[in-house]
Amino acid sequence: MERFEDVVAAVLERVEPDADERAHLRRVGDELVERTEEAVARLPVEADVKRVGSTARGTWVSGDRDIDLFVRFPPDVDRATLESYGLEVGHAVLPDGHEEFAEHPYVKGEFEGFDVDLVPCYRVESASAIQSAVDRTPFHTRYLEARLDDELAREVLLFKQFLKGIGAYGSDLRTRGFSGYLTELLVLEFGGFRDLLEAAAEWHPPVRFDPEDHGTRSFDDPLAVVDPTDPERNVAAVLSAENVARLQHYARDLLAEPRESLFFPDPPAPLAPADVREFVAERGTAPVALRFDAPDVVDDQLYPQLQKSLSGVEDVLDRRGFEVLRAELFADDAAALFFELAVAERPTVERHDGPPVHVRSHAGGFYEKYADSDAYGPFIDGDRYVVEREREFTTAVEYLESDAVFDAALGVRVETAMADGYEVLSGDEVGTLAEEFGVELARYFDPTP
Amino acid sequence: MERFEDVVAAVLERVEPDADERAHLRRVGDELVERTEEAVARLPVEADVKRVGSTARGTWVSGDRDIDLFVRFPPDVDRATLESYGLEVGHAVLPDGHEEFAEHPYVKGEFEGFDVDLVPCYRVESASAIQSAVDRTPFHTRYLEARLDDELAREVLLFKQFLKGIGAYGSDLRTRGFSGYLTELLVLEFGGFRDLLEAAAEWHPPVRFDPEDHGTRSFDDPLAVVDPTDPERNVAAVLSAENVARLQHYARDLLAEPRESLFFPDPPAPLAPADVREFVAERGTAPVALRFDAPDVVDDQLYPQLQKSLSGVEDVLDRRGFEVLRAELFADDAAALFFELAVAERPTVERHDGPPVHVRSHAGGFYEKYADSDAYGPFIDGDRYVVEREREFTTAVEYLESDAVFDAALGVRVETAMADGYEVLSGDEVGTLAEEFGVELARYFDPTP
Repeated sequence: MERFEDVVAAVLERVEPDADERAHLRRVGDELVERTEEAVARLPVEADVKRVGSTARGTWVSGDRDIDLFVRFPPDVDRATLESYGLEVGHAVLPDGHEEFAEHPYVKGEFEGFDVDLVPCYRVESASAIQSAVDRTPFHTRYLEARLDDELAREVLLFKQFLKGIGAYGSDLRTRGFSGYLTELLVLEFGGFRDLLEAAAEWHPPVRFDPEDHGTRSFDDPLAVVDPTDPERNVAAVLSAENVARLQHYARDLLAEPRESLFFPDPPAPLAPADVREFVAERGTAPVALRFDAPDVVDDQLYPQLQKSLSGVEDVLDRRGFEVLRAELFADDAAALFFELAVAERPTVERHDGPPVHVRSHAGGFYEKYADSDAYGPFIDGDRYVVEREREFTTAVEYLESDAVFDAALGVRVETAMADGYEVLSGDEVGTLAEEFGVELARYFDPTP
Repeated sequence: MERFEDVVAAVLERVEPDADERAHLRRVGDELVERTEEAVARLPVEADVKRVGSTARGTWVSGDRDIDLFVRFPPDVDRATLESYGLEVGHAVLPDGHEEFAEHPYVKGEFEGFDVDLVPCYRVESASAIQSAVDRTPFHTRYLEARLDDELAREVLLFKQFLKGIGAYGSDLRTRGFSGYLTELLVLEFGGFRDLLEAAAEWHPPVRFDPEDHGTRSFDDPLAVVDPTDPERNVAAVLSAENVARLQHYARDLLAEPRESLFFPDPPAPLAPADVREFVAERGTAPVALRFDAPDVVDDQLYPQLQKSLSGVEDVLDRRGFEVLRAELFADDAAALFFELAVAERPTVERHDGPPVHVRSHAGGFYEKYADSDAYGPFIDGDRYVVEREREFTTAVEYLESDAVFDAALGVRVETAMADGYEVLSGDEVGTLAEEFGVELARYFDPTP
């Protein structure tokens, strides 16, 4: 068996930026700051420029090419002015850049091979006085810069790469994993990668850390790390229970059997349509999918909307008796809501419980309504009237193809996209999803972590 | 529309014994008492003879041919002696009779065209001093004799026939309906049939009556009538919620639209096998049945055991994913547990939730168990390990044909009967049940009350 130290050394070899990369980044960063300061100097207000993020703190994984620059304006500048100044500076520094929108609009562009974000924010006295969420970021960088030496920075690199390997890195709303800032705080808390893994392997969520011991509220999250710059904020708020469990699982795995492959897993071979059909046949399930053009929104809007839609349709399928074994969403140019059904067909009739016979006003109305209908009953079961009436949809496909699917709780942009047209795939037809989502389907059918 | 009084008069015409029937019964009853007293006189103890039941109280429905005689022994006679004396008297009075067993063994036989029960009991001071349940019966008769005049007796006849018509008469454990004693107490409570119906139509169970205002405890039953001869006993303890609801439904129905047919309904035409198949096809369900020789026990043991078995198998079917739309039991020489399934087939795999990942000891064992198995997973869903493993039975028929059916909660005599052999009918095969249970199946498929 490999030794933990050897594995870690080999990983570091791959993820730690070498002297050339560091020097290159330093030069480009300095040049960007300089250009930005020049653009700021042309504005009629005072503002300073701060580099933030992992490339500012020396905790970037070799090959990462993100440089984040924040332009900090005085708090008395109104928001519209701040936004227009911010864009003006952005376009000056990054002439080929384009505008994106987070809390404010900002400019994103390429500069000498690096992906640069140029974001305006307010320069406030403390993180608790922020006017918008991005104002907090410079405080994070200042906090970490003061505490992370080169050795700890290497431990951060290991933890980041480990999280990337197990698919739990990133606080975007698709991943709902560990943010860079959270990663660094946890390494600080435990003093190193291995100690952190050994602790995580034994966590009993909910787990709470409060590095500055200043938290003022409780959090309803599996992991809470009180922000050292803001006593009211959980840095891990977006982290899912699943990613906490994933960290715990793989922490134990790596400690029990250290190996580099956990840090750099090969993606699975994509399935072909025939593979999908074979899996389905082996499992004896009834697969159905809704396929439509993915709404044209950023991933942080797309994935929550798709997730909501997936749950919404799953709920209705279950409520209508079409039992869902597992559901998954896939998105690229197209989006697919995929449901593997345990029950895809139902009888013509369904049981419908009426009121207790003794609740005379309701009971009478119920009885009258059904007595001369085609329903079986009303009969008396226990103290209630019951009928067996015709079911609206006897197959899941019928339901999915009907307008009733729009009554499910869908994300608003998903609803619009589906209104423009969607396809219902069922049985062997779902195999065609492999043409776009072969890797995702490989993970779906072989999900062992 | 017919008038209530006219309907009631017509019913009375049919159910009230005429002078000849009364005289005949009186003569036969007197003769039986005399013969019993003669047999008792030959015993070395003092005992008296009491007639009980509806024919003693003048509340029998014309054509009923039951005469109940109780021989009351002193309380200091031991039980074995009482039983042997009781049987000795019984056989002397009813030479062609046979022994049955309730609380004591007793003799049942025919005498001049009447069905006679000759039951030994203890003569105690009050109903609360009884040594066995049958000791109470003479007190009931004494209580009612003192209160039911001829007019009230006629009201009792109407109520009894009404309950017979709607299928709610009889405190046997198949019917779980209204006993004769309960029927009479309710008529006494409300002073007549119509007032009773009008009250029942408005009941909000639980409903409690305490004619002697001496109840000492509460009851967890939909209807409680405290026994006037025993403050601790609910006369309606065996009455099901369903029969309370049935009375309420038909009380409203009769008052709204008085008609004789509710008192004397025609039984439905029996279904033929082809009818059963047609109903099933129309309903789109998957019927299955277990058929076996009915255990050779009295109905009061048979039906509770069949009911328990029906629920027991239904629970397992549901738990194994074979959703039961409706279940019913049929019994004659054969017994059948009939299940109409909404879901009769399942996928090859079933989801199986493991422990939360953080519960390390359990989670580790679970992961090890399944990691190298044929199961899909373990994967992480929320904070848990989950696998999709092979399902034991993918069809309800496979389950019912396997020995696993004996793990269901079966009545003990049903289990023995099934161990001797049972048949599993499914799909069109269930049609053959109509050969024995055509009327029951007609009620099953057209259950409108």
